[in-house]
Amino acid sequence: MRARAPGSAANLGPGFDALAVALGLHVEVEVVPAEELVVRSEGEGSELACDRSHLAARVATSVAGHDRLSITVRSSIPVARGLGSSAALAVAAAAAAGSPDPLAVGAAFDGHAENAAASAMGGLVAAAMVEGAPVALPLRLDPELAFVLLVPERRLDTPKARRVLPAQVGLDDAAFNLGRMGLLVGGLADSRLLRPQATEDRLHQPARSMLFPEARSLMDGLVEAGALAACWSGAGPSLLGICRRSQAEDLVRAGSSLMQREGVEGTARLVEADTAGLVVSA
Amino acid sequence: MRARAPGSAANLGPGFDALAVALGLHVEVEVVPAEELVVRSEGEGSELACDRSHLAARVATSVAGHDRLSITVRSSIPVARGLGSSAALAVAAAAAAGSPDPLAVGAAFDGHAENAAASAMGGLVAAAMVEGAPVALPLRLDPELAFVLLVPERRLDTPKARRVLPAQVGLDDAAFNLGRMGLLVGGLADSRLLRPQATEDRLHQPARSMLFPEARSLMDGLVEAGALAACWSGAGPSLLGICRRSQAEDLVRAGSSLMQREGVEGTARLVEADTAGLVVSA
Repeated sequence: MRARAPGSAANLGPGFDALAVALGLHVEVEVVPAEELVVRSEGEGSELACDRSHLAARVATSVAGHDRLSITVRSSIPVARGLGSSAALAVAAAAAAGSPDPLAVGAAFDGHAENAAASAMGGLVAAAMVEGAPVALPLRLDPELAFVLLVPERRLDTPKARRVLPAQVGLDDAAFNLGRMGLLVGGLADSRLLRPQATEDRLHQPARSMLFPEARSLMDGLVEAGALAACWSGAGPSLLGICRRSQAEDLVRAGSSLMQREGVEGTARLVEADTAGLVVSA
Repeated sequence: MRARAPGSAANLGPGFDALAVALGLHVEVEVVPAEELVVRSEGEGSELACDRSHLAARVATSVAGHDRLSITVRSSIPVARGLGSSAALAVAAAAAAGSPDPLAVGAAFDGHAENAAASAMGGLVAAAMVEGAPVALPLRLDPELAFVLLVPERRLDTPKARRVLPAQVGLDDAAFNLGRMGLLVGGLADSRLLRPQATEDRLHQPARSMLFPEARSLMDGLVEAGALAACWSGAGPSLLGICRRSQAEDLVRAGSSLMQREGVEGTARLVEADTAGLVVSA
């Protein structure tokens, strides 16, 4: 079987471990019976070892209950950039291996619900682990919105990005994020109401800035250049400018200039929200 | 001028200081020119001193810039029960005294944005203070939903309910609330997706339980009796059962029995969401 799933941007500023939007970058996984395990990989992530340690192999053999599988992965989702590549890969590999619940498998392998939920459902999602299982709901996403991604050349592994976070936070900061998340959810549902403060965050972006000091001025620059709001994509280092479709091309150009100005190697690209989520074909 | 505003239930479990829903309990304030300050009060809160210390007098004289006003307050919003009575009163008094921005005045006097926003806008709102001013957005509220309020006889002043809260919380608890708030916003938009876990909270309800130990079993009882979810209303002690319209009458009866069983004096009542918000007439 063959399955395709989109990558995603989680957190979106205030919605730490709670929100994600599926983006038009995809991974496709094909799983067919074979005499022994074979893993092939093309595109993004193809430099990773193609053996049983590959995430697609671990997920597919776990779902199938054996390793007599030929697995082919084709990905356009940059790895370790905060774009949900491993959640998308896990969801797609689970589906291609015949899992009846790819979201649960994907969340279990990825450790969090929100990226896996966006990859499985598409669109904007709210997600949480409830008694060990992922629960995810669709939220309204204004189709007027587009996304400009700044993808730096540097990588940032999620475990490293998580170790810099404080164990304790002020109740006022926790409430701050709840308030901003409300403004964000309302603004993503109706882009006329979206404003830059909606992506303000006090729980993870400030601590992670030490890993990517240029992030703040890149995000500020995106808003100055016309983005309605800007935030880290997941645990970074990719950054996301949220804008109206009509502004997107200009914002891509502005994003490229900003990265150049800040001395950050990488690319700026326009991505649409993915609304299809997981697509499985025989 | 005359102005009418609804009371509201803030927080709704995870949405601490971030969410509120306007409820069909109202305060009406009439302000007319007079030779000197006169304050009259009928209904709920009429036991409070009718002098210049009355919140309606403080708000109206502040807006008018003088105290030659006759102020009449008629309220059906129980006071100090977590039903946003002071925010509603402040918003209505500001409007009746001619304020061009009753939400800002109401939030300034009440100290928080979300109750005032619900009173001003009606419906379900997300709100936050942004650079000292309230910003509020409407969120979708499924019209299929109704609310059953358990209003204990005991009062609980918000400052007291706030003093029991911890200054620091775990990052995991902050993230827990963000995740649940996402499930809640999605479930309130589409009641078919609303489940009891959506109102789980780790930031304020647990600490406040010492002020109202019966709260937990009353909320659990509401869910067992058919509520889709249950939570504190604001800082309590009122509790809110969120249910389908068709279940509401049964749930009111169940709520009454629950209070009796727990030895909590008070009333259970059905309230609709208020969708009109502030209404001003000459």
